[in-house]
Amino acid sequence: MDLHTIGELDAADPLRAFRDRFDLPEGVIYLDGNSLGALPRATAARMADVVSREWGQDLIRSWNSNHWIEAPRRLGGKIARLIGAGAHEVIAADSTSINVFKALSAAVQLRPDRTIILSETGNFPTDAYMMQGLAHLSGGRLKQKLLPADEIPAALDDQVAVLLLTQTHYKTGRLHDMAALTRAAHQAGALVIWDLSHSAGALPVELNACEADFAIGCGYKYLNGGPGAPAFIFCAERHHDHVFPALSGWFGHADPFAFDDTYQPGAGIERFQCGTPGILGMAALECGLDLMLEADMAAIRAKSQALGDLFIALSEECLTGFELASPFDAARRGSQVSIRHKHGYAIMQALIARGVIGDFRAPDILRFGFTPLYTRYEDVWLAIEALAEIMQTGEWREDRFATRAAVT
Amino acid sequence: MDLHTIGELDAADPLRAFRDRFDLPEGVIYLDGNSLGALPRATAARMADVVSREWGQDLIRSWNSNHWIEAPRRLGGKIARLIGAGAHEVIAADSTSINVFKALSAAVQLRPDRTIILSETGNFPTDAYMMQGLAHLSGGRLKQKLLPADEIPAALDDQVAVLLLTQTHYKTGRLHDMAALTRAAHQAGALVIWDLSHSAGALPVELNACEADFAIGCGYKYLNGGPGAPAFIFCAERHHDHVFPALSGWFGHADPFAFDDTYQPGAGIERFQCGTPGILGMAALECGLDLMLEADMAAIRAKSQALGDLFIALSEECLTGFELASPFDAARRGSQVSIRHKHGYAIMQALIARGVIGDFRAPDILRFGFTPLYTRYEDVWLAIEALAEIMQTGEWREDRFATRAAVT
Repeated sequence: MDLHTIGELDAADPLRAFRDRFDLPEGVIYLDGNSLGALPRATAARMADVVSREWGQDLIRSWNSNHWIEAPRRLGGKIARLIGAGAHEVIAADSTSINVFKALSAAVQLRPDRTIILSETGNFPTDAYMMQGLAHLSGGRLKQKLLPADEIPAALDDQVAVLLLTQTHYKTGRLHDMAALTRAAHQAGALVIWDLSHSAGALPVELNACEADFAIGCGYKYLNGGPGAPAFIFCAERHHDHVFPALSGWFGHADPFAFDDTYQPGAGIERFQCGTPGILGMAALECGLDLMLEADMAAIRAKSQALGDLFIALSEECLTGFELASPFDAARRGSQVSIRHKHGYAIMQALIARGVIGDFRAPDILRFGFTPLYTRYEDVWLAIEALAEIMQTGEWREDRFATRAAVT
Repeated sequence: MDLHTIGELDAADPLRAFRDRFDLPEGVIYLDGNSLGALPRATAARMADVVSREWGQDLIRSWNSNHWIEAPRRLGGKIARLIGAGAHEVIAADSTSINVFKALSAAVQLRPDRTIILSETGNFPTDAYMMQGLAHLSGGRLKQKLLPADEIPAALDDQVAVLLLTQTHYKTGRLHDMAALTRAAHQAGALVIWDLSHSAGALPVELNACEADFAIGCGYKYLNGGPGAPAFIFCAERHHDHVFPALSGWFGHADPFAFDDTYQPGAGIERFQCGTPGILGMAALECGLDLMLEADMAAIRAKSQALGDLFIALSEECLTGFELASPFDAARRGSQVSIRHKHGYAIMQALIARGVIGDFRAPDILRFGFTPLYTRYEDVWLAIEALAEIMQTGEWREDRFATRAAVT
């Protein structure tokens, strides 16, 4: 492999025109779009419009005249197209964590005689944490069980109310078999919640084809919705009428502006809204969604796999002392490659100092995300080149790279 | 009273310079800042900066370099100064509804042997609704009781875990006596949550002087944080260490980036964070807060009361067929005046068509909010003049004003 071949791959990329639709910083190779997606060029103008015209000039009237009131449903419908769901089964709302709570508390209502809420050890922490909060609130009735992935199928018994899994593992990128695990859970009478934070916008997801019950996910990663963007929640239509939301806020009421004292759940997915939606965040997220919906998901997946394969091939060729933490087989991997090194933190800091941005996940993982709308094959080449140089020079040993700071 | 006298009031207003700090539409008299606060001029530039530079150029690094990670605490500290709380007792986070749930679920944990969660009939619906969701989730252990305000003190018995009250009533503007009701609840061994949605930024609030336990409130009304802005939550320091949050998301963990499987509540108020904060909404809210903190709260309150008194005096002079729904005594009133009319909906629509924006609250309330940083005495005069003309011409009877649409 040489830089000329790499250039040919980029020239032949059917998605190459999308890169210009993002406002990317000069001199940076950004392989962290799975932590915070890049800024679509359209977003800045849209944000100026929603701030100055819609809020500033139209003020309260915008809830109707500028369709703010419909934003959660409208964006939900757009997200639905990316995850194999019906438009009436998804809303954009709140944070991923809050939506985990909504889905969990709904699922346990649907299985009132069961007490176990099951997930995977090493799942993204907020999923586990939200389970713990709900279990604590239940006064001990609900019990969380966390098991290694390979022990989950055997643990699906008649006490499991709900299985919560993240389809694409945040550290390793390992993909769960959504269809098979959903089937196994249903055979045991349990419901399933899929966390799609590292899947939505990164690969084709078929929630309804897999008969998923609930799903939740993140707006600020592959959907390019901006820092802390609104998240989303999916509830399969068959459950809509059987759920009394635990987070029963006025925006989920059947008639919010009747100002009744008594909560009546809104029709269908509406009941998973809670408080007043954050319109500025919604506006930014919608720009990300509109851009993503222009692209072909099969092309995104094909390029994502090719980028990952290239990263693995080049790291085998150019790096020593690292261990692959992601599945080698692209079919079993999301849109990232992670490698382990015991000095991973300092090495990632040194890499960032050279303008190659990936991220570090404790204790030893260097994570590189591929976002096919703006990641080039050349970026992968240059990242590996920089990493090889850092290891060669030993510059990662410098003091300035040793101190741990918070990153997301 | 004549327009010359009104002009003198505006000329003598110590807050008059603040009006130019807002980007208000031409030809509009905006008396709905208690539903959606107006746009501070500084906000548009700040939003452009957070979008294009912080997100677009600095990307994921902004969590540290641009201090995104500290936004909930930093903004909470600013809000604290407006509500008589310590900086370490308030964070900006999520929506008002979600924060009601956090406060309620924390309070019932602190009173595990009690079963009643008490509020007022006709309180802002989301408060009542969130109570109902929690009661439902508890499987019947917790019971909601809603009583008219005057029956609340007598209902404070040894079964009441928590009393949730809105200090300033959203429809009538009636003020509760925070100190007296908090004392009464404490004497009965109950905790108190104050909803400050129509108080924060509108009048001096003294949470700690009143020994309040929890408070929550809204960022998009008097704090001018933008549509669906992040809300806030206050928890008195004495309770911090005794609460295991029900909404135990990763941002409230003691060490979010350790990615542990087990939730450990963060220090102090940090544990009331949940998911990743919405940074675009936070940036807009901070502009509103910074502007409000330049003003003197005593001056805000004095002008607010004078504006309300003027509205009442002029409506008595110029209007017939309306009934005052707000307390006549300014000391017992928040920063709004509400009047009743059985055709209130159509009348408000006709008023809005003339460019005077208040809002309607079912079944019969016309609500006018006074936001002393940008409401002029002249605005009150012109609003009453328009209302008198609408009643004289009967234009509110036109068909176009008859259809009810959603407004917030």
